[in-house]
Amino acid sequence: MSFHILTAQSVKDFLLNIPNIKDFFDDDILESQEIGDGNLNFVFILKSQKDPTKALIVKQAVPYLRCAGEDFPLSKERMSFEIRALQNYAKLVPHLAPKIYYEDEEMSIVVMQYLSEHIILRKGLMESVYYDNLAEDISTFLAHTLFYTSSLYLDSSQKRHMMDSFNSNRELCKLTEDFVFTFPYMEHETNFIDENCLDEAKTLFSTMQFKKNVLSLKYKFMTQSDALLHGDLHTGSIMISKKETFVIDPEFAFFGPFGFDIGALIANLINSYISHFYISRDGAYQEWILKTIKEIFEKFELKFLALWDAQDESSLIIPNFIDDKTLTEFKKDFMKKIFQESIGYAGCKIARRVFGIAGVEEIRGITDAKKRKEANLLALKTGVKLIENYKNIENLDELIDIIQVQKSS
Amino acid sequence: MSFHILTAQSVKDFLLNIPNIKDFFDDDILESQEIGDGNLNFVFILKSQKDPTKALIVKQAVPYLRCAGEDFPLSKERMSFEIRALQNYAKLVPHLAPKIYYEDEEMSIVVMQYLSEHIILRKGLMESVYYDNLAEDISTFLAHTLFYTSSLYLDSSQKRHMMDSFNSNRELCKLTEDFVFTFPYMEHETNFIDENCLDEAKTLFSTMQFKKNVLSLKYKFMTQSDALLHGDLHTGSIMISKKETFVIDPEFAFFGPFGFDIGALIANLINSYISHFYISRDGAYQEWILKTIKEIFEKFELKFLALWDAQDESSLIIPNFIDDKTLTEFKKDFMKKIFQESIGYAGCKIARRVFGIAGVEEIRGITDAKKRKEANLLALKTGVKLIENYKNIENLDELIDIIQVQKSS
Repeated sequence: MSFHILTAQSVKDFLLNIPNIKDFFDDDILESQEIGDGNLNFVFILKSQKDPTKALIVKQAVPYLRCAGEDFPLSKERMSFEIRALQNYAKLVPHLAPKIYYEDEEMSIVVMQYLSEHIILRKGLMESVYYDNLAEDISTFLAHTLFYTSSLYLDSSQKRHMMDSFNSNRELCKLTEDFVFTFPYMEHETNFIDENCLDEAKTLFSTMQFKKNVLSLKYKFMTQSDALLHGDLHTGSIMISKKETFVIDPEFAFFGPFGFDIGALIANLINSYISHFYISRDGAYQEWILKTIKEIFEKFELKFLALWDAQDESSLIIPNFIDDKTLTEFKKDFMKKIFQESIGYAGCKIARRVFGIAGVEEIRGITDAKKRKEANLLALKTGVKLIENYKNIENLDELIDIIQVQKSS
Repeated sequence: MSFHILTAQSVKDFLLNIPNIKDFFDDDILESQEIGDGNLNFVFILKSQKDPTKALIVKQAVPYLRCAGEDFPLSKERMSFEIRALQNYAKLVPHLAPKIYYEDEEMSIVVMQYLSEHIILRKGLMESVYYDNLAEDISTFLAHTLFYTSSLYLDSSQKRHMMDSFNSNRELCKLTEDFVFTFPYMEHETNFIDENCLDEAKTLFSTMQFKKNVLSLKYKFMTQSDALLHGDLHTGSIMISKKETFVIDPEFAFFGPFGFDIGALIANLINSYISHFYISRDGAYQEWILKTIKEIFEKFELKFLALWDAQDESSLIIPNFIDDKTLTEFKKDFMKKIFQESIGYAGCKIARRVFGIAGVEEIRGITDAKKRKEANLLALKTGVKLIENYKNIENLDELIDIIQVQKSS
C-alpha cells in the first residue's frame, strides 16, 4: 500500500486487514491511542477493548522530524533500517528485542510486542532500581549482534550482501556525525549551553588534543565497517524489568566500528553514575552502576570470544592458517582494541551530552542550577579524560579508577 | 540488449549500431580480432580496414573465468565495477585512464581507446626502460582517485551513495582475500611452489608473527572503507609510454583501505628491483626503481595533502572545528598511517607472489633454476620483512634501506 500517515483511528482500520494482527486480537473490538513521546516518529498503542492487557505497539515514521514538524524533513526510509535491524535481532537475540507482528517498509510501519511491565532503563536508573540481569542480558545482546554480523562470522559475500541493506542509512549516520562528533565541541547554533557553563564551553571548544582524538574516532565511525550496530544504544533505547531486557529503536542501524554501541551504553551508565552524586547521593547504587559497567565489559568479552572460538571458519580465518597460540594472541589484541575504542566512543557520547542539542534527563533535568552545573562539569571532565586517554587505558580497573577519581580531582 | 557472448565477427555487427562508434570510424569497413591474453575476459581490437591506426579496444566479461573455462563460474557483473571505476577515472584523472566510447553493463562490455604506443609497465620494467613520468603520473592517479572518493572530500551521503555502486563486488574482493591474504601462506592446493623452495615454503607457513600481521592487514582490507580503490594496481594494470601513463583493468574496484593500491604498486616495483639482480644486473636501473618508489610516496603525499588543504569542508572536518596547528598534526598522523599501511600491503603483495597461484613474470619466468630460487627467496625475505615491520617504519629512507639490505643480509 502506498505511504500515508496514520492516525489513532486509521491505524485500526489499516491493521485489521492484516491476518497476523487479526489472529492476535481474536476479532476483539480495538481501541487505539497515540502515545508517542519520541522525537522522530508516531507511536500508537492498539488494545483489545475487553482485555486491555492484549495490546500491540505500532510505530510509524513520517517524512519529517516529528518533534520539529514538516519543515524539518527526514526521510521515512529510516523505518526500513529499524525493521531490518529488528528482523536481525529476531534471529540473533529473540529474547532481547520486541517480537515483530507486522512490518511494511513502504508504509514505514512496524507492529511490535507491547512491553507492559517494562520501563525505559534511563528512568529506572534515575529511580535507583537495581537490575540484576542487565549486565548479563546486554552483554549477550552486544556479543551476539556484533559477532554474528562481522567478518569473524559471516563469509565475505554474506557480509557485503548484508551491508547493502544498511549502507544507505545516510541521514541518521549524518546526524551522529554532526551531533555526536562535531557540533557539541564548537560554537554552533544547535548547541544548548547552560548559562552557568559558558566559560567551560569556551575552554572545551579550544582544547585541541581532545578534538584531534574526536576526529580520529569520527573518522573510524565513518569508515570502519566491523559489524551491524544498533547505532544509538543509550539507556533510552532499552526497556527493562527486573526479569527482562529489551533493546528497541534501532533506526540508526548501520555497519560501523565494534566499539560504538558498547561505548554508547557505557557512556549513559557513567552519566547515571555521575547524576547520583547530585540526586540520590546513594553511594551503594553508584557502586552497583560501576560493577555493572565492569560486568558488561567482562561478560561481553567472554561471550564474544566464546562465539569466536566456536567458529572454525570465517572470511577472516580458515582452518590451519595459524596456530592456536598465535590465534589466541591475535584475539587478545583484537579484544583490547575493541575495549579501548569503546572507551573513546563512551567519552564522545558523554561529552556530546553536555553542550550538545540532546542532553540526558538525569543531568540536564537537575533543577538546582548549582548542582546541575557541577554534574555537567563532572560529566564533561570524565568524557574528555576518556577521549584523551582511550588508547592508553589497559584494563577495566584503570577505566573504573578514571571514572571514580574525577569527582575528587 | 540481453547478454550474449560476442565473437570477433559478432562484435562488429553489435557495435556498428552504436552512434558513438559509428562516428569514430566514419563508416569505414572494420576488421576485428581477438587479442585477449588475459585470465578473465575476452578482448578484441576493432580496426578500420583502410586506416589501421583508427582502432578501439572492446572488452567483454563472460560468466566464468576465461582462462579456466566454463567450469569456473565468475559473475560477469565484474565488468559493471570496471565500467563504474573507469567512469570515475574519466572524471577525476581523464589523462591517466583510457577514454571510454561505449559501455553496457547488461552486455558486460566496454569499448575503449586503443593504446597503440603503450606497453604494459611490467614488460617495460623487465626491459630496463626508464619512464621519467611514471612517479609523477601515478602519484597523481593515486592522490586524486583516493582523495576525491574519501570522506575527506565527499559528504557523508555522497560517499555512502558511491559505496552502494561498488559494495557488491563480492567475488573479486573474495579472490583478493583468498589469493593475497590467505592461501599463499599455508598448504593449499592452489599454490605453485618451485620445487627448489619446498623447505622455505614450509618455514614460511609456520612463521606465526608474520601471519598474525597478515591477518590484521586482511581484516583491515575487509572492513576499512577509506576510498574507492583500483583493487589490483600492479604493474600489469598500467600501460605506459615515455610520454603517457594509463591505468587499466579496475574490475577489482571497491571501497577499501588507502594503503592497498599504493602497496600493490610499490610491491611490483620492488619485485622488478629484485628481478634485475638476476636478469640485467643493471645497478643503475635498480637505483632508478628505488628512486621512483621514493618519488611516488613523496609526490603522493604532497599531492594528497594539497588536495586536502584546498578542501575547507568535508564530512570529516567543518570550518572552525579545529585550529590549523592541530589539523596539521592530525594530517601528519593520518599520512603516516597511510604510509605504514601501504608498506604492510606491499609486503603482502610481494610475499603472495612467491608461493601463490599468480607469480610475477619477472621472477617466476627466470629460466635458470638457481637464479629463480634466489630471486624468489629474496622477494620472500623482503615481503616478510615489510609485513613484520610495517608499523615501525618511520620514513622513506628506512623503507629503502630495508629493500636494499635484504640482498646482502
